[in-house]
Amino acid sequence: MHTLKVDLGSRSYPIHIGSGLLAEAALYRPHLAGAQVLIVTNETVAPLYLATLRSALTGVTVREVILPDGEQYKTLEVWNQIFDALLTARMSRDCTVIALGGGVIGDMAGFAAACYQRGVAFIQVPTTLLAQVDSSVGGKTGVNHPLGKNMIGAFYQPRAVIADTATLATLPQRELSAGLAEVLKYGFIRDAAFLDWLEAQLPALLAREPAALAHAIRRSCEVKAEIVAADEHESGQRALLNFGHTFGHAIETGTGYGNWLHGEAVGAGMVLAAELSARLGWLTAEALARVRRVIAAAGLPVAPPSDLSAERFLELMAVDKKVLNGQLRLVLLQQLGTAVVTGEVAPELLRATLD
Amino acid sequence: MHTLKVDLGSRSYPIHIGSGLLAEAALYRPHLAGAQVLIVTNETVAPLYLATLRSALTGVTVREVILPDGEQYKTLEVWNQIFDALLTARMSRDCTVIALGGGVIGDMAGFAAACYQRGVAFIQVPTTLLAQVDSSVGGKTGVNHPLGKNMIGAFYQPRAVIADTATLATLPQRELSAGLAEVLKYGFIRDAAFLDWLEAQLPALLAREPAALAHAIRRSCEVKAEIVAADEHESGQRALLNFGHTFGHAIETGTGYGNWLHGEAVGAGMVLAAELSARLGWLTAEALARVRRVIAAAGLPVAPPSDLSAERFLELMAVDKKVLNGQLRLVLLQQLGTAVVTGEVAPELLRATLD
Repeated sequence: MHTLKVDLGSRSYPIHIGSGLLAEAALYRPHLAGAQVLIVTNETVAPLYLATLRSALTGVTVREVILPDGEQYKTLEVWNQIFDALLTARMSRDCTVIALGGGVIGDMAGFAAACYQRGVAFIQVPTTLLAQVDSSVGGKTGVNHPLGKNMIGAFYQPRAVIADTATLATLPQRELSAGLAEVLKYGFIRDAAFLDWLEAQLPALLAREPAALAHAIRRSCEVKAEIVAADEHESGQRALLNFGHTFGHAIETGTGYGNWLHGEAVGAGMVLAAELSARLGWLTAEALARVRRVIAAAGLPVAPPSDLSAERFLELMAVDKKVLNGQLRLVLLQQLGTAVVTGEVAPELLRATLD
Repeated sequence: MHTLKVDLGSRSYPIHIGSGLLAEAALYRPHLAGAQVLIVTNETVAPLYLATLRSALTGVTVREVILPDGEQYKTLEVWNQIFDALLTARMSRDCTVIALGGGVIGDMAGFAAACYQRGVAFIQVPTTLLAQVDSSVGGKTGVNHPLGKNMIGAFYQPRAVIADTATLATLPQRELSAGLAEVLKYGFIRDAAFLDWLEAQLPALLAREPAALAHAIRRSCEVKAEIVAADEHESGQRALLNFGHTFGHAIETGTGYGNWLHGEAVGAGMVLAAELSARLGWLTAEALARVRRVIAAAGLPVAPPSDLSAERFLELMAVDKKVLNGQLRLVLLQQLGTAVVTGEVAPELLRATLD
């Protein structure tokens, strides 16, 4: 087991990474606030891992709520089912909510923990690569609105993240690739050497070689923990983590939540952001080609859906959270391994990229 | 105009109290985050005060959302209408949400501001006595769930509270009395001299004499600001502000939201809490009689609805936010002017009080 710390003062917490951690009672115990636990999971994950997690929670009352699986269910209505479960079980302010699943479950359970009785204890047990390297770390929680992704939510830190790499064995290949999109992102925005390593190791990662996955998860969490510790509420450099996401969110909203996986949309979004960086003269044609090649090699799409017009794309991007005073801010690459946030992209360049 | 400060470090904010403040552009300007404002109000308040507030907001884009009026609309579904308005108007992260109305509007608008894009600027413009002395101060926001009041919410501080006492002129008498319940509460829990003053001034307050109302509001806000500054997230003495509220919430939930006004339920709840305090031998029969007399004189009910059985009462109280580890904690009076939180009330005493 490897343990990282996310350094946020009184809200600091550990990320445990390793094989078989799901069953380790000792990892949960120090983080349970009281004697009541609600596990939030989904229909796909419950048959695989719920029993193991339950048996690791000894000496406390455990209830569960099993939500439908998919980004299209990350809504206020489904979110409310968590409150139904908490209140039906009469959970009090010292209860603990545990998210067992991927990014959607983590986002919804974390947001419910943030809001139930104005805040209760929360533990993340991510079971997808995407959640292990990204959504379970950093405290972003929330749900979607038909007019925009992740528009309703809270910054709310878990007390611990327990990432059991053995759970990735059951992950569909499409979801593994989606997770690799976020892993590659850390290379693109912050760590050229990690990008080199990833490019070389993609076959091993796609074949789920445990050592390769463990290293990729660890380095991804390290980069993310570093950035989050410096800027918890995204007033500055944390926005770099949104590389590919403004384009990606537009794809997700425009195609209907759940049709494209988040990581797939981010994959195509990173290619668009790299293309725009190249049009600005920042990335060489060679570097751009490399971005496209490595994203394709991870099993990800490198272009948005053809039926999403440039017009509609711009409309969807206009409600992005990174718009300030009417100005769209984008995360672009100055070179591979170095990203910047810029609000000064000429509209015709953006338009040309989308056309 | 009188200005108090709620002292919460980087989240400190002013409460301005005075007649005619609604129209004072200079009070809003320093607290607007950017060039977009959404006013959240209701059908009753909009015809009275929306135009005045709009004309005080110069140089910014102003949109509004007008919600139905009443506690029965403090739901996740109605709350979502605020997000519809924010997103339809493409409000960005630097927008400002202004609550114009009573406690329900303040709670819902504040909770929406807390969650929109994970937090945007918020200003409270309370137009009821209850909101001016209580709900607009202290950062508690949220909505109700059919199984419990205020169960879903956030602690979220406004950037400013602008309490225009002139708006109380249009307040229905029943709502004025409901507001006085919270004013009396500050006397009961913290300030016996203020209670003496209130008892003497009740006729003037009910007749809406401006000087009496202004003093009552100011002293109430002072007491609340002091308690909140010492315990923002209710880990200790802030719970004292819930005097009468555990009983009161059970009445509100048990009778259906909107049938009893919050202040009315708190009025009857304070009598029940005082009765229980007397059964414990803390309050004298004389003090108890005085509690009942002053609450009645304020135009408030002194007993719960007769059709709410002791059984159902206990059931409703069991989901209260002040339950910890299965133990109900109640705020009781040691004497008039001094409250304590206790988890050690014998169940038969509580039961006898409810019977």
